[in-house]
Amino acid sequence: MNRLRIGVIGAGGIGGAHLRAYAAWPELCEIVAVADINFAVAQTKASRYHAAAFDDPRIMLDRCRLDAVSICTPPKWHLPVALEVAERGIACLCEKPPARTLAETEAIVAAFERSGAILQFAFCHRFHEPVRQMQELIEAGKLGRIVQIYNRFGFRFDRAATSWFTDPEVAGGGVLIDTLVHSLDIFRMLAGEIERLEAAVSTTLPISVEDTASIQVVSRSGVIGSLHCSWVTPVSEAEIRVWGTEGEAIVDYASSDGACYRLAGESDWTVLSARAPDRFVLQTAHFLSCVRHRQPPRVGTADGLAVMRAVEAAYRSASRK
Amino acid sequence: MNRLRIGVIGAGGIGGAHLRAYAAWPELCEIVAVADINFAVAQTKASRYHAAAFDDPRIMLDRCRLDAVSICTPPKWHLPVALEVAERGIACLCEKPPARTLAETEAIVAAFERSGAILQFAFCHRFHEPVRQMQELIEAGKLGRIVQIYNRFGFRFDRAATSWFTDPEVAGGGVLIDTLVHSLDIFRMLAGEIERLEAAVSTTLPISVEDTASIQVVSRSGVIGSLHCSWVTPVSEAEIRVWGTEGEAIVDYASSDGACYRLAGESDWTVLSARAPDRFVLQTAHFLSCVRHRQPPRVGTADGLAVMRAVEAAYRSASRK
Repeated sequence: MNRLRIGVIGAGGIGGAHLRAYAAWPELCEIVAVADINFAVAQTKASRYHAAAFDDPRIMLDRCRLDAVSICTPPKWHLPVALEVAERGIACLCEKPPARTLAETEAIVAAFERSGAILQFAFCHRFHEPVRQMQELIEAGKLGRIVQIYNRFGFRFDRAATSWFTDPEVAGGGVLIDTLVHSLDIFRMLAGEIERLEAAVSTTLPISVEDTASIQVVSRSGVIGSLHCSWVTPVSEAEIRVWGTEGEAIVDYASSDGACYRLAGESDWTVLSARAPDRFVLQTAHFLSCVRHRQPPRVGTADGLAVMRAVEAAYRSASRK
Repeated sequence: MNRLRIGVIGAGGIGGAHLRAYAAWPELCEIVAVADINFAVAQTKASRYHAAAFDDPRIMLDRCRLDAVSICTPPKWHLPVALEVAERGIACLCEKPPARTLAETEAIVAAFERSGAILQFAFCHRFHEPVRQMQELIEAGKLGRIVQIYNRFGFRFDRAATSWFTDPEVAGGGVLIDTLVHSLDIFRMLAGEIERLEAAVSTTLPISVEDTASIQVVSRSGVIGSLHCSWVTPVSEAEIRVWGTEGEAIVDYASSDGACYRLAGESDWTVLSARAPDRFVLQTAHFLSCVRHRQPPRVGTADGLAVMRAVEAAYRSASRK
């Protein structure tokens, strides 16, 4: 079996995570090339994997006979880069958010539908083992009928004011599109399609986008979710809680354990163990498998479109007074 | 100093809590009379405190020369009973929710304004020592600028289907008006006046009112809150969390400790001790002091009106799709 030839476009923090995840599967793929608008950054990352470095992804795509790429650029460049990838029939793992807007996301999806190449959006939490365990508890009916969900991704983003993350032209928005986009995807994974949502945002830092956001969301099946995120709260927290009529479950990202739960009548928590590889490594394995076997990814284009529809609804809601 | 002469109207669960709280201050007051539509219940409770029992509160009010009463009936009877109390110029501690509707609450407040007698709404969590500690942490600026608040009151209410709590004619609604009314008051205490809110509700039990509710609320100062409650989740939980730009704080009602907090850069929680009497006892002490000194209570008529305005806005919001 030939190993898949991989390129990574965008060699910043998340590009590094993708490279590390591909490198975890040497029998399945080889990292051939890394592209970044900052050539020195591309070279540094590429040299670690004995790969070629490029400052123009089009040249990389033309020269390297790639089977698959990851797009890890800031959102502004997702659409133009994705169009180049799709045009060449190369499979694509595209970082979140899918793009700056629903319209850009639709254009990306349409290009891959035309090309027939595989497109997976990188909602990595779908591959976080404790979240998957939580989903299994729900699907097995252990928690009864799910009624409420809470999720928080909070941390301190001290570089915010000087980062592209807070340039709406580059990022498409602030913490809502960057971080709550994960929460919306996790809510859809656990509770099903979104029926209704309302958002509230605030800005404490000297930036032009929101640095704190909450969304209240209701699924078609009637599950109510409260999703929080902030770039200005100092203590890092990433947590999901689910309540059902027969029990509750928690995923705490700070723990090395899996999901924990307790059922009606129990005072103690049952703690599941989690020995699976991390979410980036599992996400990459799924992508490589889909490319190899030409199968649709389980986090597909419909998920990207649904989440971006929710993101835009959230921004509309937050701007109403 | 003469002891204040006290009557309690409504001798169910919460009436018992008021009687116990008055009995904690024997130097300040004496329990003179207990009224309940069920005379046997009134007698049982009255006999514990060597008080007289009545099945008609008007006869009790006319005969017993009371200085103050607690109204602990179901909400349907708050307005008619309060009008009788106000007319006789007797001070009143009125249980939550203030009444079934904002209009009924306004009528109660107007009657006490006409009479000049003191009216305190029994939002007992204002007197819960850990909540007061949390408020002090916020007011002292220890947590920085507050950006988000989370609150959950969840438990299993197995008797729901056969209880007056789920008869909208008697209770005015379901878990939202019964339990989330506390959360709205706590949010106002910690974050200030409410600017905007959206609610979502669901019903799992065979009842005609909501048994699960969430409210997303924003204060005038921009603090975003997520308030949850449910009668159908099996594990009892009562918790408040506050996040600011310099730290976070938690009140867990299951703990015998006070509030705990951690600031930027700290990995450990600082746990405050709480040795004060319980919230019902402290609430009663405040009420007795206000009656004695003819001072306005710190949980006043404006708080009752503001919370009922929020409750009605929440029901309107929940009924929109």
